[in-house]
Amino acid sequence: MPFKVYLSGEIHTDWREQIVEGAAGLDVEFAAPVTDHDASDDCGVAILGEEPDKYWHDHKGAMVNAIRTRKGIADADVVVVRFGEKYKQWNAAFDAGYAAALGKSLIVLHPPEHDHPLKEVDAAALAVARTPQQVVAILRYVLDGQLPAGS
Amino acid sequence: MPFKVYLSGEIHTDWREQIVEGAAGLDVEFAAPVTDHDASDDCGVAILGEEPDKYWHDHKGAMVNAIRTRKGIADADVVVVRFGEKYKQWNAAFDAGYAAALGKSLIVLHPPEHDHPLKEVDAAALAVARTPQQVVAILRYVLDGQLPAGS
Amino acid sequence: MPFKVYLSGEIHTDWREQIVEGAAGLDVEFAAPVTDHDASDDCGVAILGEEPDKYWHDHKGAMVNAIRTRKGIADADVVVVRFGEKYKQWNAAFDAGYAAALGKSLIVLHPPEHDHPLKEVDAAALAVARTPQQVVAILRYVLDGQLPAGS
Amino acid sequence: MPFKVYLSGEIHTDWREQIVEGAAGLDVEFAAPVTDHDASDDCGVAILGEEPDKYWHDHKGAMVNAIRTRKGIADADVVVVRFGEKYKQWNAAFDAGYAAALGKSLIVLHPPEHDHPLKEVDAAALAVARTPQQVVAILRYVLDGQLPAGS
Amino acid sequence: MPFKVYLSGEIHTDWREQIVEGAAGLDVEFAAPVTDHDASDDCGVAILGEEPDKYWHDHKGAMVNAIRTRKGIADADVVVVRFGEKYKQWNAAFDAGYAAALGKSLIVLHPPEHDHPLKEVDAAALAVARTPQQVVAILRYVLDGQLPAGS
Amino acid sequence: MPFKVYLSGEIHTDWREQIVEGAAGLDVEFAAPVTDHDASDDCGVAILGEEPDKYWHDHKGAMVNAIRTRKGIADADVVVVRFGEKYKQWNAAFDAGYAAALGKSLIVLHPPEHDHPLKEVDAAALAVARTPQQVVAILRYVLDGQLPAGS
Amino acid sequence: MPFKVYLSGEIHTDWREQIVEGAAGLDVEFAAPVTDHDASDDCGVAILGEEPDKYWHDHKGAMVNAIRTRKGIADADVVVVRFGEKYKQWNAAFDAGYAAALGKSLIVLHPPEHDHPLKEVDAAALAVARTPQQVVAILRYVLDGQLPAGS
Amino acid sequence: MPFKVYLSGEIHTDWREQIVEGAAGLDVEFAAPVTDHDASDDCGVAILGEEPDKYWHDHKGAMVNAIRTRKGIADADVVVVRFGEKYKQWNAAFDAGYAAALGKSLIVLHPPEHDHPLKEVDAAALAVARTPQQVVAILRYVLDGQLPAGS
Repeated sequence: MPFKVYLSGEIHTDWREQIVEGAAGLDVEFAAPVTDHDASDDCGVAILGEEPDKYWHDHKGAMVNAIRTRKGIADADVVVVRFGEKYKQWNAAFDAGYAAALGKSLIVLHPPEHDHPLKEVDAAALAVARTPQQVVAILRYVLDGQLPAGS
Repeated sequence: MPFKVYLSGEIHTDWREQIVEGAAGLDVEFAAPVTDHDASDDCGVAILGEEPDKYWHDHKGAMVNAIRTRKGIADADVVVVRFGEKYKQWNAAFDAGYAAALGKSLIVLHPPEHDHPLKEVDAAALAVARTPQQVVAILRYVLDGQLPAGS
Repeated sequence: MPFKVYLSGEIHTDWREQIVEGAAGLDVEFAAPVTDHDASDDCGVAILGEEPDKYWHDHKGAMVNAIRTRKGIADADVVVVRFGEKYKQWNAAFDAGYAAALGKSLIVLHPPEHDHPLKEVDAAALAVARTPQQVVAILRYVLDGQLPAGS
Repeated sequence: MPFKVYLSGEIHTDWREQIVEGAAGLDVEFAAPVTDHDASDDCGVAILGEEPDKYWHDHKGAMVNAIRTRKGIADADVVVVRFGEKYKQWNAAFDAGYAAALGKSLIVLHPPEHDHPLKEVDAAALAVARTPQQVVAILRYVLDGQLPAGS
Repeated sequence: MPFKVYLSGEIHTDWREQIVEGAAGLDVEFAAPVTDHDASDDCGVAILGEEPDKYWHDHKGAMVNAIRTRKGIADADVVVVRFGEKYKQWNAAFDAGYAAALGKSLIVLHPPEHDHPLKEVDAAALAVARTPQQVVAILRYVLDGQLPAGS
Repeated sequence: MPFKVYLSGEIHTDWREQIVEGAAGLDVEFAAPVTDHDASDDCGVAILGEEPDKYWHDHKGAMVNAIRTRKGIADADVVVVRFGEKYKQWNAAFDAGYAAALGKSLIVLHPPEHDHPLKEVDAAALAVARTPQQVVAILRYVLDGQLPAGS
Repeated sequence: MPFKVYLSGEIHTDWREQIVEGAAGLDVEFAAPVTDHDASDDCGVAILGEEPDKYWHDHKGAMVNAIRTRKGIADADVVVVRFGEKYKQWNAAFDAGYAAALGKSLIVLHPPEHDHPLKEVDAAALAVARTPQQVVAILRYVLDGQLPAGS
Repeated sequence: MPFKVYLSGEIHTDWREQIVEGAAGLDVEFAAPVTDHDASDDCGVAILGEEPDKYWHDHKGAMVNAIRTRKGIADADVVVVRFGEKYKQWNAAFDAGYAAALGKSLIVLHPPEHDHPLKEVDAAALAVARTPQQVVAILRYVLDGQLPAGS
């Protein structure tokens, strides 16, 4: 059976594409949230009707997005959560906690300057990676037993 | 993996067909109860033998139908529950509660005049839709990230 | 350990009081939703702030009430759901479905004229009672093994 | 049975004390993480031995703290997560996701300026409060059915 | 997704063949225990070595057979348990209890003279059938919505 | 915390009393079904109304008894199932299967002549005892670490 | 609610007593296996009858001991597993795996020379301690927030 | 559906190959850990960066390997755990405990001289085999009902 991997978190760089391309040829199925920022913010009101109050505007969108997120995490064997350099990214940490409580294998991807504030998240993870290439290397090793050349 | 969607509730209009047709081309598998009203009412005694008491007549049928309903909900990623304008529809609300307790993503479909009596059901849902087309639009967005044209 | 019984559903008659008084002396702990209709409808906005839109007014209240309902059902060994003669009572059916999915022992209490529309709910129940006194008699028998005098 | 409430998140103000004092007289049991910031950061190495690498220093502490956090959340009926005005607070969002995945009733407490970045967390909550007093009012209503005076 | 049906119980008549043949054309996958009586009794010692004590002879066989039974029931949507006219058949009742505790849809198949001693088993079932043809009719209705001709 | 022990099965001898008396002084809480045979058979109709059909008479009783049985097994750490020398006792085997599926520690109590037909039940048990005194000895050892004098 | 701690593993030194005494005054409940080596080995045959074959002698004992172990681990918040300097101690590693799969907080206690062969066990733990005093210090910190003097 | 079998434990002989080859033609899917000893020991640091401390070197590797192990066991219907003649093999016993807690069917494979120290592990197993050929024979019987020729 293929490894099912959910790619959660930061949506402003191409880290997902790097992982998906790097993992070409491996028996992996990837899933992810909708990464079009505007669509993700507005999906609730675009489909279900306008809200004059920004809070409910956001709320309707977050609920619709949760349909995709919940299935992505529930189906996953591995959840990769990426924290970028900017923004609050509380939804990334929320997904990490959600995945941990379900017993999913968690890989966290973030730069070293976030080590201290992410220590509780990292403590629930099986790997803390710095680059998408390391995530690919983990998947390649876990599936095929092959370590990076030169190691 | 395809989204599995169970379409529960009202059986007197063609809302299921509208959703299934609207979702053509999406990676969705639909399931639903038997929607032939007479067959659904009589299946128990038709197969397992007559009952002189109407209560047990109904009971045997409800139990046989539960075989299909339970699997439909248990297998589903998303449960859509439609409340029409007439009838008690307690089985629809029962299915909604059952799905909520299993952690399924719940979409409720009903006209605004039911908002107040359905508030507890809606509170467990990730979306409250007014039309089958909105349900289709949710599925299209959740699967493919595409919002309705013009939005 | 005491039997924990959650009394869900209709809030316009004194059926809960009849059961609680009838069960005096049994090792039972009862729980129930808030049965003050106005408080139940308005709790969300009274505590968390007004909403101009009636839908969100109701929504905030239903969410706050769910904190109590969820614990009541989750802690219960037995869930009694009462359907009265009036109103939609979809929240009662929702609670019944929720309780059934959690594997709780379900007792449904309703007049015979509701038998047909409640057949799916009754099919998930271990007892269908017509009077609060019958619910008390079930609890007395289940806890102490005593049947009603004269039976 | 008492309501068990876990108070997660921000540790730099006295919001926990305000809730605990406000809820005096209610049948509630509170739990919380260790809120001594230095002790929380250093508990791992203080007990289990120094680490020259700050990453593992943090890691050992986060793991020891997780013993308390996991039990607090697992035992809770309600998890209150407070986001303050400063810091990353990813552990708060992690706890919220963890609690949500376990089906706990979630109350989120944060100022309105965090509404947008917290929309996914709020979408999993049964209440979004702005002040500790609102959390107390929710607990009072949920336990005793009493709304704030004047409402 | 196909219905997965496990056929438990009596192994001395051809009821399984009747069901499998009758269900030809339906989207059903059947599983069953090993029905070769001698092989079933002796598999433990035949593979893992003789036991002088008949108790352990039986024990080793029952354990090996449990590997197949557990998977059959765990994978099933529906468990059919057949009680024949002879023998103790405690393993059939054990399977029924096991399936019930896992929330499987249970169909019990037995002659009317067993009604009284099987009342607790029947009370956990969604259907009590008298003939293999009735089981086929249930499956046909549940999958395709078709009732027996003439009904 | 006390060991909670549910005593299931045969109701025609005083084996339960022997175990309860023998375990005096141990930190054990016992539960059991209603053992008054007539009350157990008739509880459904005595409380909920007569049924002309013996099948539904039995059914209503079995359902009411299930309220007690389910809680007894669900709360138990250890389920003891006694098979006597007579009767079908399918409800005992059903309880054993139900308990096994829930992961309860199972002790089966039966005479050697039932070894072969009970081999699947015994294979799910942690102990097969021949006398109530052996069950007491197991409880005494498991709780206090004391073996029978002379052993 | 008290912390419930199960002390698994090595039975030839007084490490359990050191922990229990060191934790005096904390709100902790301890449980442990029977630590009388002979009683533990012989309990099966002493209670349930002799076995000529040593394999079944051991088997009956291991099954009876499992009644205590399973409850101890199932009830625990924290499982401490001690590996001593001698013997295979596979039952200790088995308990660690069992506890990990149930999501218990795991503390492993072993000398540094076992670090390499225990790396998979340690990887599932929240703390790796070298002395019983460190386990006490963890419990004291986790319950009362107090670190060892001088740290 | 195919039987999914995870082959855990000893990595210094070709027992896995013997089982896989012996089971050719059966509807079985095998999974296993990475059995290249050096890769398995060094995968953590090879991918995620060097650690000067051997403990953390091992830890990072064990965590990465756990991604594969967890999925292998979680997906499995049957877990075979092999204990060889040498080494501590605590990870094998850990996997056995982990699999047992998840309710997997467990087959243990070890020479008779390990019977006593493995008695707790064997007590959780459905079969104790001495040779890879016996494991193959179990799989053949469980899937196809065929016993070894001559038995």
